[in-house]
Formats: sequence, C-alpha cells, structure tokens
Amino acid sequence: MEPKFNVWIEREGQVVMSAWRADLLSAIDETGSISAAAERMGLAYRRAWEKIQEMEAGLGVSLLDTAVGGPGGGGAKLTPQARDHLDRFRAFSAGLEEEIRTRFAESFGPEQASR
Amino acid sequence: MEPKFNVWIEREGQVVMSAWRADLLSAIDETGSISAAAERMGLAYRRAWEKIQEMEAGLGVSLLDTAVGGPGGGGAKLTPQARDHLDRFRAFSAGLEEEIRTRFAESFGPEQASR
Repeated sequence: MEPKFNVWIEREGQVVMSAWRADLLSAIDETGSISAAAERMGLAYRRAWEKIQEMEAGLGVSLLDTAVGGPGGGGAKLTPQARDHLDRFRAFSAGLEEEIRTRFAESFGPEQASR
Repeated sequence: MEPKFNVWIEREGQVVMSAWRADLLSAIDETGSISAAAERMGLAYRRAWEKIQEMEAGLGVSLLDTAVGGPGGGGAKLTPQARDHLDRFRAFSAGLEEEIRTRFAESFGPEQASR
C-alpha cells in the first residue's frame, strides 16, 4: 500500500496554484512560450492560456510578460510575481511527500506499507 | 489564500482508502446498513456497494458482515479488519491538515495566507 496526495491553493474558491499549474508555469519559464509549454504538457494552447487567465484573476496579478508576433512568433516569460508565487509553492510542497510517507508508516506500520 | 489537500491510499494502482471511503465505512458503522449509509452520503445504493467491493478486492479482505433479509431488511456491520483499516486511516490523516497549514504559512507568510 502507498499513500497518494494532491495539494493545491485556493483564493475565494478559485484554484490559484497546484502541482499541475506549477508545472505549467515552469514549462513556460523553460520554453519561453505558452504554445511550447502547452505542447510539452500535452495540452491545447487554449486550455493552457485559460488556466493562466484563471490564476491571474484569482491572484489579482499578472503572471506573464508576453510579446506578440515578430520573427519566430511571440514569447512569454514569468513576471516577478509569478516566479515568487511558483517558488513559494515549490517550497510549500517540498518535503510534504516525505512527511506523508512518514505519517503513513507510523499509522499503518512498515509491514503494511510494503504490502 | 488557503491550502487544500486530498490524501488517499492505493494498493497496486487501486484506491483502497480515502477520506470519502472512510466516511462511507463510518456511515455503515453508525447506521448498521449499506442502504442507510448510502442515503446519508447522498449516494445510490449500488455505488456504495461497488465502492465497498472495490476496496475489498484491493485489500484482499472482507470489510462487511452482512445479514440478508429478515424483519426490517438486512444489516451490515464492519469486520474487525475494516475497523482496523478505518482507524489507521483516521490516525494517518489526523493532524495532516494542521501540518499542511503550518507549512503553507511558512512558505507564503501569515499575511499572504490571510489574503
């Protein structure tokens, strides 16, 4: 048996961060564009864009600096607020898996945990 | 902002316990029947029964002692294995919410946490 978990952050009932959303922001950061990030995540561009819009609305901040058109098409990079929000979420979720595994072994015992 | 989480237990890819499944077992324990428990949970009887079957298959143990028919219809009560599994899950998840709130405040700060 093994414990599984999902953790996310809401503001006024709106999801403003999750592991999946953090991965989307990281993918935009690494690829420099929403479309390349969407492709890497196996998402439609439109869905990636909508998720970013949702997060921005929930947080009340801009998450991306976007450049439209030009040679090679537009690009997108994270705003300082987006980077801060992403870093805080990564810090928040880091260690949580280990904590959950420890609590699981305490409650179910190492022998149950390995079944 | 506030942190939200969901935690569950899998065995060989099958969900064998979750907060929702624990509530279903508790409802059967308190009402003495699957149908009364399903009604309390706002579930179809069939769905409650299927979830119990899934958990039993995943765990390889019987979770319910059931009595069929008789005056007042059949009843169901938790087996000792079900009670043990339920108690361990409750112990595992107790305190986890507090732990997650503490980690959240550490990463996002109390002022962000209250926005």
